[in-house]
Amino acid sequence: MTKALKKLDNLFHDALKDIYFAEKKILSALPKMAKAAQNDDLRAAFEKHQAETEQQVKRLDQVFGMIDAKPQGKSCQAIMGMIEEGQEVMEEYKGSPALDAGLLAAAQSVEHYEISRYGTLRTWAEELRLDEAVQLLEATLKEEKATDEALTELAESVVNAEAEDEAA
Amino acid sequence: MTKALKKLDNLFHDALKDIYFAEKKILSALPKMAKAAQNDDLRAAFEKHQAETEQQVKRLDQVFGMIDAKPQGKSCQAIMGMIEEGQEVMEEYKGSPALDAGLLAAAQSVEHYEISRYGTLRTWAEELRLDEAVQLLEATLKEEKATDEALTELAESVVNAEAEDEAA
Repeated sequence: MTKALKKLDNLFHDALKDIYFAEKKILSALPKMAKAAQNDDLRAAFEKHQAETEQQVKRLDQVFGMIDAKPQGKSCQAIMGMIEEGQEVMEEYKGSPALDAGLLAAAQSVEHYEISRYGTLRTWAEELRLDEAVQLLEATLKEEKATDEALTELAESVVNAEAEDEAA
Repeated sequence: MTKALKKLDNLFHDALKDIYFAEKKILSALPKMAKAAQNDDLRAAFEKHQAETEQQVKRLDQVFGMIDAKPQGKSCQAIMGMIEEGQEVMEEYKGSPALDAGLLAAAQSVEHYEISRYGTLRTWAEELRLDEAVQLLEATLKEEKATDEALTELAESVVNAEAEDEAA
C-alpha cells in the first residue's frame, strides 16, 4: 500500500471509530428523547430513527470487518456535547410548550454531524476502493438526510402548533 | 407576550449565544487551518470563509440588537470538540499527504453544525416574527451551505490528487 493510501486508511479507521461511538451514544439518548417528546409525530420520528440507528450500527460492524478491524468506538467530545444539550433542554424546558422545539434543534445538530461524517467516510471509502463499504455508508447517509428533512418539516409544524395553542 | 412565545424566545436567545461562541472559535481556528493546508485551493477556501465568517458575526451582532440583547457567547462543548479535532489532525498528520483530507473532514463537521444551527434559528425567528432577523439568518445559512458544497468538491479532488501523486 502506498504512503498516501496508508495515511488515508488511518483517517478512515479513526473516523469509523468516531461515528461508531456517536451511534452508540445516540442509541442510548433516543428513547429518552422519545419519552420526553410532547408531539406524537415527533415521538414517532424518534422511535423510527431508533430502529434505523440499530441497523446503521450493524452496517458499521460490517465496514469494520471490511478493513479487518474490530468494531470499536473512540470518545468524541462533539457528539457528547450535542447529546448533553438535548438533556439540558429536557430538564430546563420540562412542561414548556417550547420543549419539542428544543428537542428538535438538538436532534438536528446530531443529524448534521452524522451527515458530515458519513459523507466524509463515503468519499474516503471510494478512494480506498472499498466498494462494498461505499454502498453501506451511502445507504446510511441517505437515511440521515431523510431523517433531517423529516425533522425540518416537524420543526415548522411544531412551532406553529404551539403558537396556535396559545392563541386559542 | 404569550407563554409559548416567551419560552421560544428563550430558546432563540440561547441558540444565538451558542452560535456566537461557535463563530468566534471558528474565526480563531481558520487562519491556522489555512496555514496548515497543503492544497492551494483548500487554503483559498479557508481564507474566503474567514472573510465570510467576519460578516456572519456582524449579522449576529445585529440579530442580538433586534431582541434587545447584548452580543454574548455561551460555551459550546460540541464546537470545541470539532475544532479540537482539527488541531489534532494538524499535529498527527503534519507532512502527510492525508493532512488536507483530515482538515476538510473537520471543516465539514463544523459547517454542518452551523447549517443545523442557522436553520433552527431561522425557523424560530419566523415564528417570533423577527422578519429582519430571518433575512440575516437566511443569508448566512446560504453561505454555509455553499461553503459545505465547495468543501465537498475539494474533498473529492484532494483525495484523488494524493493518489495520483503517489502513483506518479
